[in-house]
Amino acid sequence: MSRLSREACAALDATDPLAALREEFALPPGIVYLDGNSLGALPRATPARLAELIEREWGHDLVTGWNRHGWIDLPRRVGDKIARLIGAGPGEVVVADSTSVNLFKLLAAALRLSSGRSVILSERENFPTDLYIAEGLIGLVGGQHRLRLVDGDAVADAVDAECAVVMLTHVNYRSGAMHDLAGITAAAQAKGALVLWDLAHSAGAVPVDLTAAGADFAVGCGYKYLNGGPGAPAFLWVAPRHQEGFRQPLSGWLGHAEPFAFAPDYRPAPGIGRYVCGTPPVLSLAALEAGVDLLLAAEPAGLREKSLRLTETFIAAVEQQAPGLELSLLTPRLSERRGSQVSFRHAAAWPVMQALIARGVIGDFRAPDILRFGFAPLYTRFVDAWDAAAALADILKTGAWDQPDFHRRAAVT
Amino acid sequence: MSRLSREACAALDATDPLAALREEFALPPGIVYLDGNSLGALPRATPARLAELIEREWGHDLVTGWNRHGWIDLPRRVGDKIARLIGAGPGEVVVADSTSVNLFKLLAAALRLSSGRSVILSERENFPTDLYIAEGLIGLVGGQHRLRLVDGDAVADAVDAECAVVMLTHVNYRSGAMHDLAGITAAAQAKGALVLWDLAHSAGAVPVDLTAAGADFAVGCGYKYLNGGPGAPAFLWVAPRHQEGFRQPLSGWLGHAEPFAFAPDYRPAPGIGRYVCGTPPVLSLAALEAGVDLLLAAEPAGLREKSLRLTETFIAAVEQQAPGLELSLLTPRLSERRGSQVSFRHAAAWPVMQALIARGVIGDFRAPDILRFGFAPLYTRFVDAWDAAAALADILKTGAWDQPDFHRRAAVT
Repeated sequence: MSRLSREACAALDATDPLAALREEFALPPGIVYLDGNSLGALPRATPARLAELIEREWGHDLVTGWNRHGWIDLPRRVGDKIARLIGAGPGEVVVADSTSVNLFKLLAAALRLSSGRSVILSERENFPTDLYIAEGLIGLVGGQHRLRLVDGDAVADAVDAECAVVMLTHVNYRSGAMHDLAGITAAAQAKGALVLWDLAHSAGAVPVDLTAAGADFAVGCGYKYLNGGPGAPAFLWVAPRHQEGFRQPLSGWLGHAEPFAFAPDYRPAPGIGRYVCGTPPVLSLAALEAGVDLLLAAEPAGLREKSLRLTETFIAAVEQQAPGLELSLLTPRLSERRGSQVSFRHAAAWPVMQALIARGVIGDFRAPDILRFGFAPLYTRFVDAWDAAAALADILKTGAWDQPDFHRRAAVT
Repeated sequence: MSRLSREACAALDATDPLAALREEFALPPGIVYLDGNSLGALPRATPARLAELIEREWGHDLVTGWNRHGWIDLPRRVGDKIARLIGAGPGEVVVADSTSVNLFKLLAAALRLSSGRSVILSERENFPTDLYIAEGLIGLVGGQHRLRLVDGDAVADAVDAECAVVMLTHVNYRSGAMHDLAGITAAAQAKGALVLWDLAHSAGAVPVDLTAAGADFAVGCGYKYLNGGPGAPAFLWVAPRHQEGFRQPLSGWLGHAEPFAFAPDYRPAPGIGRYVCGTPPVLSLAALEAGVDLLLAAEPAGLREKSLRLTETFIAAVEQQAPGLELSLLTPRLSERRGSQVSFRHAAAWPVMQALIARGVIGDFRAPDILRFGFAPLYTRFVDAWDAAAALADILKTGAWDQPDFHRRAAVT
């Protein structure tokens, strides 16, 4: 890449085919927001949609809203929309519960479908909740089951005849490294294991084709690149060939074939419906739908192209403006190994990030020493990448990060 | 009770000390809403609270909202408020997930704490999701575990040395019959069983004192009498003596002692915090808080007194206006055995309820033949009880229910 400048970045923005979509978000002025992979930005349509839902649908129509406004269909309706972002078909995805709870359902399914095999295989650097949920499930089912953790690059080779299921997060939450979804799926299945993908840092940001990969299960998050709002419910996908092969253990009433028959015995709904558990949080689900609708307005290949250019631009801008400033790039340079974020290590990462936030550049600190910057292609601009790099370089050059205020730790980091 | 009239009911409303609280709800004009035990009404404060949360806290402050606006504390903060409605102390309740998911956590805890005992005992007429979740858990843990169902009145006597936990819903969703919470708890514990109460139809409507009863576990619903909105998250309570005796199996990251340390091994948070699983749905949680705040403005004894008078008034008004019209009262007449609803059986219950709804009297049908009317003491008036009875009597006398439109079934019934 030739020498960068803010003007060159502005020129990229001027010809960005996705630029109009940024206007669909209510981003605060003066802020460079590079944390859409923690909490996505607010779609402009969301406040009015929620006001309508709350005041008219709930307030005026009260309990009749379940039928009249289709609340009861939301888990499948929004699921069908998310399906289009991850290479899944209609009737294959539902929105329900949290990513953690959905992992529990699908890991339980995987252990049952792979009976005789006892290992959940994952990578040591996986997002902790995935590992914690596997631990919790294993503690409950007992027997020979265990969780085996290996390095990310060693997963495919570590699959053996004991391995029931490989559970991996497609894009790593710290490094931004992206696994070869199709390749690992094929390698694991060739050795008789099932594969469960966590798409928390993928859906809405990088291309995913679960059907083409022939994967078995997937979960994902609603509040990151899907822009569903804080704590938005999560989604899950089950390959059609497995959907009816299993009664998931969180067999709540809304996963029943006839919930309103109020029968004493559980009879699972056909297809993906049985993976719903209790009553869905309608307010949060409606906000998620507004977020997903914006993603569906973008062309998937265009999203990926912009995402890669954004992360390349940011890496180049940091290296050009802040050479020799004790930053080391954690994210792969190879585009097919990179998600939609860039992470640098720095010994003073915590106060450096606080200094950035104080200047209006919002990224994330991840323990122990990681500066994480997420690039949501729907609304992040090339000048944002430039400005963030400039602020980072200035803070490091001037030592502006080394103030007592910036060393103080907050509850959520 | 002397002969009732609409004027006598209006006089009761005029002296009702809770009447002012009705003004805090945005009830639609011309509607008699007797389904607050399915979906509570909209508090007037909720739209503005959600607009502020969405536009300012999320839209403007983005990911910093987790600290700046205390989103991370919501499960415990709202839990502490709900605690005051159910006789629990601070730090004993969290809001999380759905009632179904919370039942799973606590039943798993109960089976572990009662190891050596294998039976979950419940009543045949319990709300089905409670039974389905027990089934799902038993299917997962296997062994000798089983669910034993008996008639509601036979539960206390059915506790034996095999019984690990008695799981009961305090107020029955169909009949409105209320169990003796303290009596059954004592009887079951005397035989060595734990007791888990589902307070879905109790919290916010009838007095509950879990501490005085010495109960072990409880769950409850956010969208009925707590007025949290469609699909509001649920709550759970664990007696302090049990809280740290168990690592619940849905061990998601927000139940970790240090979620933001991102450690690979699960280490449960102290106390009730370990019963949280994934990231909470902040929009739905904030709406729930607005609903709970209204209940805290009422005096609990006053709520119960009004609730009993409302249900007595409705029973009397129906019997006075609709004698001999093939209605049979399913709800106990004895006030200490009655929750906050009245149910009648009628052979044509489905079309009769549709005819009522068409006249603006919103109750519920429950299979196979039940007309269910909920009385939320915060906002239901005595004239509502009168008007609903009058409409019911007229529909039955005139046969107005027997129209094709009213026989058609909807998705949610």
